[in-house]
Amino acid sequence: METHGTPENAAEHTGIAAQDWATASADPQYRAAVVDLLGALAYGELAAFERLAEDAKLAPSLDDKAELAKMASAEFQHFQRLRDRLTAIEADPTPAMEPFAAALDEFHRQTAPSDWLEGLVKAYVGDSIASDFYREVAVRLDSDTRALVLAVLDDTGHATFAVEKVRAAIEAEPRVGGRLALWARRLMGEALSQAQRVVADRDALSTMLVGGVADGFDLAEVGKMFSRITEAHTKRMAALGLAA
Amino acid sequence: METHGTPENAAEHTGIAAQDWATASADPQYRAAVVDLLGALAYGELAAFERLAEDAKLAPSLDDKAELAKMASAEFQHFQRLRDRLTAIEADPTPAMEPFAAALDEFHRQTAPSDWLEGLVKAYVGDSIASDFYREVAVRLDSDTRALVLAVLDDTGHATFAVEKVRAAIEAEPRVGGRLALWARRLMGEALSQAQRVVADRDALSTMLVGGVADGFDLAEVGKMFSRITEAHTKRMAALGLAA
Repeated sequence: METHGTPENAAEHTGIAAQDWATASADPQYRAAVVDLLGALAYGELAAFERLAEDAKLAPSLDDKAELAKMASAEFQHFQRLRDRLTAIEADPTPAMEPFAAALDEFHRQTAPSDWLEGLVKAYVGDSIASDFYREVAVRLDSDTRALVLAVLDDTGHATFAVEKVRAAIEAEPRVGGRLALWARRLMGEALSQAQRVVADRDALSTMLVGGVADGFDLAEVGKMFSRITEAHTKRMAALGLAA
Repeated sequence: METHGTPENAAEHTGIAAQDWATASADPQYRAAVVDLLGALAYGELAAFERLAEDAKLAPSLDDKAELAKMASAEFQHFQRLRDRLTAIEADPTPAMEPFAAALDEFHRQTAPSDWLEGLVKAYVGDSIASDFYREVAVRLDSDTRALVLAVLDDTGHATFAVEKVRAAIEAEPRVGGRLALWARRLMGEALSQAQRVVADRDALSTMLVGGVADGFDLAEVGKMFSRITEAHTKRMAALGLAA
């Protein structure tokens, strides 16, 4: 699975990626970066739970509502695994999550969907971007952390569900496509702006992202990663029938 | 567990209560009553999921938020078991749930908590009343249905959590107790009014509730059951430090 979305500089870190947690965590900077990463991911899952539960209220049918509640529940299971992992590596989960709460809450506040379809597009776009981001990071992780990260990114079935519903809605009323395309652009803009805020704030995490604990912070490298994620987003939107 | 909250007329139905589903469901009126009951319970669990997920947003800390999200997730697991059971007895879950959606949605609409403590009291009161009600019913059910109903009523840990938090809040600021007591009275009134609406609308379910498929509908008997549930509520509120 690690080959999915491999960034061009992955080769630099065959070192850490070949180690397990026990070996890799001897480096306190690496350890701090992993605690940051798991904290961000855990808070993201908890926020995703809340968002999906909220969207369930907008569902046009009981079946749709149950489907969203199921996905929300799956996100919560992921949250629990990440929190348990933080505890297992002797990191207090709450302080690990807190630095990421403001950015994620702000993202959700700025992008509250006004209807069922906007909610579906948001969940799909948000999950896909988050998934791309964590897969980029996963290739630089020790084998234990990588296995956990890839496991909680496992598709909860949301993507297929959202794509089907959105496509059907556009087919039934093509003008819906224009509105949702605008919405998806707004989501992407807000996601990038919050992600850049997190990267700028969290040194240990950023240093790991750009692939060099010793080399310091390289904004250009982070920029390239964001470009790759944006390109993938554009392709997904086209597949959905939306101009990105 | 069936001895818990046994109503005085339980003896009448040792007949059905001693049977399993395969035998009891030969009676189409009994079958219809069970489909109603499972439908109501399933929708209730889905609504409880939504309510807890909503309350999680009001949580004063990340730990409290995670605790509520966990309970919401547990309610969703219950919902899934009930839905699967409906499917297993060849009843379509959605039409089974739909007759109860209006009453439950109206209850939640009329009693939207305005803060974290109101949300906790609501969840505690609501869960306890629902639990009392289903335990009253459980004694009249065939052994298979009874086992399922009692399993999904299993405490999700919410009661202890809510009682601790509410007691601590009243201790810290006694005036909070007066406000929450009023709130609990409003909740109980609204719950009874919606429950009576459901009982009046659903013949098969009501007939089973009053304990006689052949004897027809007896409003006095339903009234007695509501009295027992109200008394239990009063005792719980006193234990919580609230005048009921």
